[in-house]
Amino acid sequence: MPQANINFGRLPERYLFLDIAKRVAAYSETHPHADIIRMGIGDVTRPLAPAVIKAMHQAVDDCAAPETFHGYGPERGYLWLREAIVKGDYAPLGVQMNPDDIFINDGAKSDTGNIGDILTPGSLIGITDPVYPVYVDTNLMRGNEIKYITCNAANGFTGDIPKEKFDVVYLCYPNNPTGAVITRCKLKQWVDWALQNGALIMYDSAYEAFIRDPKIPHSIYEIEGARNCAIEFRSFSKTAGFTGVRCGYTVIPQELMISDGKGGKANLNAMWERRQSCKFNGASYISQKGALAVYSEEGQAQTKATIDYYLETARIIRKSMEDCGLNPQGGENAPYIWAQTPDGMDSWKFFDELLNKAQVVVTPGSGFGPAGEGYFRITSFADRQRTIEAMERIKNMIKYA
Amino acid sequence: MPQANINFGRLPERYLFLDIAKRVAAYSETHPHADIIRMGIGDVTRPLAPAVIKAMHQAVDDCAAPETFHGYGPERGYLWLREAIVKGDYAPLGVQMNPDDIFINDGAKSDTGNIGDILTPGSLIGITDPVYPVYVDTNLMRGNEIKYITCNAANGFTGDIPKEKFDVVYLCYPNNPTGAVITRCKLKQWVDWALQNGALIMYDSAYEAFIRDPKIPHSIYEIEGARNCAIEFRSFSKTAGFTGVRCGYTVIPQELMISDGKGGKANLNAMWERRQSCKFNGASYISQKGALAVYSEEGQAQTKATIDYYLETARIIRKSMEDCGLNPQGGENAPYIWAQTPDGMDSWKFFDELLNKAQVVVTPGSGFGPAGEGYFRITSFADRQRTIEAMERIKNMIKYA
Repeated sequence: MPQANINFGRLPERYLFLDIAKRVAAYSETHPHADIIRMGIGDVTRPLAPAVIKAMHQAVDDCAAPETFHGYGPERGYLWLREAIVKGDYAPLGVQMNPDDIFINDGAKSDTGNIGDILTPGSLIGITDPVYPVYVDTNLMRGNEIKYITCNAANGFTGDIPKEKFDVVYLCYPNNPTGAVITRCKLKQWVDWALQNGALIMYDSAYEAFIRDPKIPHSIYEIEGARNCAIEFRSFSKTAGFTGVRCGYTVIPQELMISDGKGGKANLNAMWERRQSCKFNGASYISQKGALAVYSEEGQAQTKATIDYYLETARIIRKSMEDCGLNPQGGENAPYIWAQTPDGMDSWKFFDELLNKAQVVVTPGSGFGPAGEGYFRITSFADRQRTIEAMERIKNMIKYA
Repeated sequence: MPQANINFGRLPERYLFLDIAKRVAAYSETHPHADIIRMGIGDVTRPLAPAVIKAMHQAVDDCAAPETFHGYGPERGYLWLREAIVKGDYAPLGVQMNPDDIFINDGAKSDTGNIGDILTPGSLIGITDPVYPVYVDTNLMRGNEIKYITCNAANGFTGDIPKEKFDVVYLCYPNNPTGAVITRCKLKQWVDWALQNGALIMYDSAYEAFIRDPKIPHSIYEIEGARNCAIEFRSFSKTAGFTGVRCGYTVIPQELMISDGKGGKANLNAMWERRQSCKFNGASYISQKGALAVYSEEGQAQTKATIDYYLETARIIRKSMEDCGLNPQGGENAPYIWAQTPDGMDSWKFFDELLNKAQVVVTPGSGFGPAGEGYFRITSFADRQRTIEAMERIKNMIKYA
């Protein structure tokens, strides 16, 4: 008889966002007339850019005639999209990138979760805490060991450079959930540490489009040496509102090598091609055509305008949290605001109070790891007016507590 | 330093279809004017049904306005699609199915590859030979042990019921690559064997839409007891031409249990929800809306007409292979024709000869496993006129060999 993967026993019972969804559903059921404002999941709400809509209509029409029909795409994604990424996302940073360093996927979550397939189970993984739960859960499932790297106000939520060895470290900047950004200088310390210690950095820059400060790096490859120690994950989900469309990409520089466990070296780009070619069949042609349009002149202007809208919402949230005395972080160069619960209240308790007393859904900080206790996350992706209404409700709740 | 997954050393150097693509590209480069007819990859070529095109245009428009915008979808896929599947695919077979038994995905390949995540590595896997290479490669990557179950003319290409124990057995009917179908009686023998031996069956019915003979089962759940021993994989890729659109689904009955390795039972539906919720973010909203349209009255008629077209092409291929004396199997109730190489020629040698002498690309049988040696696969998915031309070229090559 087959045996269930025993590593699932190491996981929290529910995936964080599913847990929140189920709690909110339970509340809704007992309070059918409640006017709930949902800011718990980092999902976008603004419509797609007109340039993207136009391109996807064209792509749908391509599927309607035999001459323009597209079936299975190339294993790494269409070359036209990979070339647009090189030109649109990396060349402006002065970063040399080859289209064959890039793998198109159906969203960053799949690849950040699946990347572990190419490493031997039992690796020691350093994970910044608080953290997007996907890194933790997928490594536990895989049988890896996890050690948290605490991120707090003292280290600017970017973690202290470790003294111990790690096989792999996950970094995400601009950060989910804290909204923290990393300086070039600190990121260089991380890269230097990885090169010296033979560690691999998984760099999640899904939120880089929110960076407005020219001093902040958008890509880890802006740092010298990163091509020899880092994989980067990017997404169109937040850049261009593709949470429902599904497209992202992973960068694995062709020269990136790790131990093959037999005294030699293994090429990660080649291994990932092998993995993807037998466990994935490409992102939708329509989604890839939509992503291509993000790099057009109109697409760039339109997606930037949407991000500006979210950043203005973020500014409003941050200001409101300051007014409440909740000491907010983030919300500048990032879509997330990380605030302290009033009087150091337990995160889930605050979540429940907010849901029950103000009908506002946030994300409890401890859902992101032990260092998140006493915090909560608010996203700037909800509707502007609803967000303002939510801020008023939170202010009132805290004022009259 | 992280170690590469040593199980990758157990894989063939290249994924079969990537290998073929690279050989054809190399030939093209040295023969730039060659008029190559590609029948090596089972990719569809007919345009999508007008009902699907219409629905996807509507879905793209939904993304253009905040009121109708859809971001992250539900973890298991949209309920409207899962309900349509229950009603459209299972109710007509007399099979009771619950929408929560169903998980929507971005194509069957992802799930047939990833499903191993929920089992403990080191399982003993029975794989029918010849076989779609994904089952083999993904199990090798995962550290499982594989034993082939030989399928040949003597057992109707459906394998002899094993005398030994297996943790998991993969079955695919209508079969890729042989085009064989399985009778209800034989499928019942497999289900009974699995129930008696505590084995799990992974049932790939991606090609069920090609079945025209009413006696042949479309789903393993037509067999009593299958809900307690089988997972079923389905796809819109071949049913509705979605190879570029990306949508499929996996059925894991809610009562399906396996050992939890600690004397208890583990629920596979719950485990898969946990896996998907942290390593997948749903199929594209646009693709799911397209899939929904397959179940409309027009969608059913239009997709059936396309499959009829492919089946007629299959009939032509089968007849041509008979004329050549190559003893074809399949091509009835299935899109693939499985034929013997002339005079028992080595499969890759025949592949190379066909490419060089006739500029026709087929799939070498041995690429599908040891029992495929001496065979080759032809797909009925290519353009009709090109297929007829390819058949003439093969006939001529064999005649004048």
